[in-house]
Amino acid sequence: MRHFIEELDDLQKELLAMAGLVELAVHESVKSLVERSPSRAQQVLVNEARINQMEIQIDEMATRLLATQQPMARDLRFLTAAIKINNDLERMGDLAVNIVERALSLIEQPPIHPAVDIPRMAELVERMVHESLDSFVRRDAELARNVLLSDDAVDDLRDDTYQELIRFMQAEPSAIPRAIDLLFVARNLERIADHATNIAEDVLFVIQGVDVRHHAEERR
Amino acid sequence: MRHFIEELDDLQKELLAMAGLVELAVHESVKSLVERSPSRAQQVLVNEARINQMEIQIDEMATRLLATQQPMARDLRFLTAAIKINNDLERMGDLAVNIVERALSLIEQPPIHPAVDIPRMAELVERMVHESLDSFVRRDAELARNVLLSDDAVDDLRDDTYQELIRFMQAEPSAIPRAIDLLFVARNLERIADHATNIAEDVLFVIQGVDVRHHAEERR
Repeated sequence: MRHFIEELDDLQKELLAMAGLVELAVHESVKSLVERSPSRAQQVLVNEARINQMEIQIDEMATRLLATQQPMARDLRFLTAAIKINNDLERMGDLAVNIVERALSLIEQPPIHPAVDIPRMAELVERMVHESLDSFVRRDAELARNVLLSDDAVDDLRDDTYQELIRFMQAEPSAIPRAIDLLFVARNLERIADHATNIAEDVLFVIQGVDVRHHAEERR
Repeated sequence: MRHFIEELDDLQKELLAMAGLVELAVHESVKSLVERSPSRAQQVLVNEARINQMEIQIDEMATRLLATQQPMARDLRFLTAAIKINNDLERMGDLAVNIVERALSLIEQPPIHPAVDIPRMAELVERMVHESLDSFVRRDAELARNVLLSDDAVDDLRDDTYQELIRFMQAEPSAIPRAIDLLFVARNLERIADHATNIAEDVLFVIQGVDVRHHAEERR
């Protein structure tokens, strides 16, 4: 039987590999929308099967270590956080798939040009995803707290996007179905940011041993 | 130290108590919308604090049992399922809060009357929530499979609702912001149904020891 510390290390490596796939999925989903590229969209759908497999694998690894190694204190917190982060990553992958579905619907129709900045929102969200995982690898509480702060900026951008899309729909009723597709893209990006926030909260829990989840909710 | 089997039983009772609160939250959120009742809405918001507390408590119970009791086979599956179900329930509570936020926004504005049947969708979703938990208590695989099937009916109702709301928005552009509130109510109900589906999949995993999650995704 391998040493516990090596197994924890393997688990972290698997989580990071999965995070890499999820980051790529988020990035490519928005690219497929902006560049109206069905082949990029297709890539995200193919990618998702791999993410789903990894989720099950990581879940099994973490649960087995929990149930057989009697971990304590920080190792126990790491393992429970790993299970949660794994779940958040898988959901982010699903949300990227939702974005791709909206992109595929939009690609089939004539383009519309409301003054909304989805790429900027996507950029901010991608940075949050990346930094949340980075804070996990480096056990960096300050970086994790930064992610929590960025969430407000994403919410502001989403509010602007909603207002602009409503104005646009009122001016061009025939474009309403397409504008609703964009509304849901913004909503999915916002939810990806929420999951990055969850991960940052889990990182603080691993480092500090304090569950900040619902404190963070009060803060919002 | 208490007997392991009693502790598992306590954990299941706590989960069911939480499920009761979540069912109530879903029910009252839609009632607050239909009856335009701010006091019912307020009740859901108060309720949420309790749901969040219970989530943390149940998480700690399940993780402690996992890490100290070296559970095997079915007990191990029960504990990992409990952690996931707990998470799904907490998210359902959040979604009920989202519905209440839309209801509070709609209550402040003149009523609109698109031909959408949110109460019927809510009724179906509430039944799924109830049956998913019932299948868990009774370890009833057939009931769990029924929940998986109901999910398609919810998706159909959501599609009808979206189409009707789009027609309505095109006919009455001034009502677009309110119609979007209703669109998100339907979306939140659909997501509550997705979480009930997750719970049913976890129940099948506890009973059968087979992870049906991504098989179910292929099925959809």
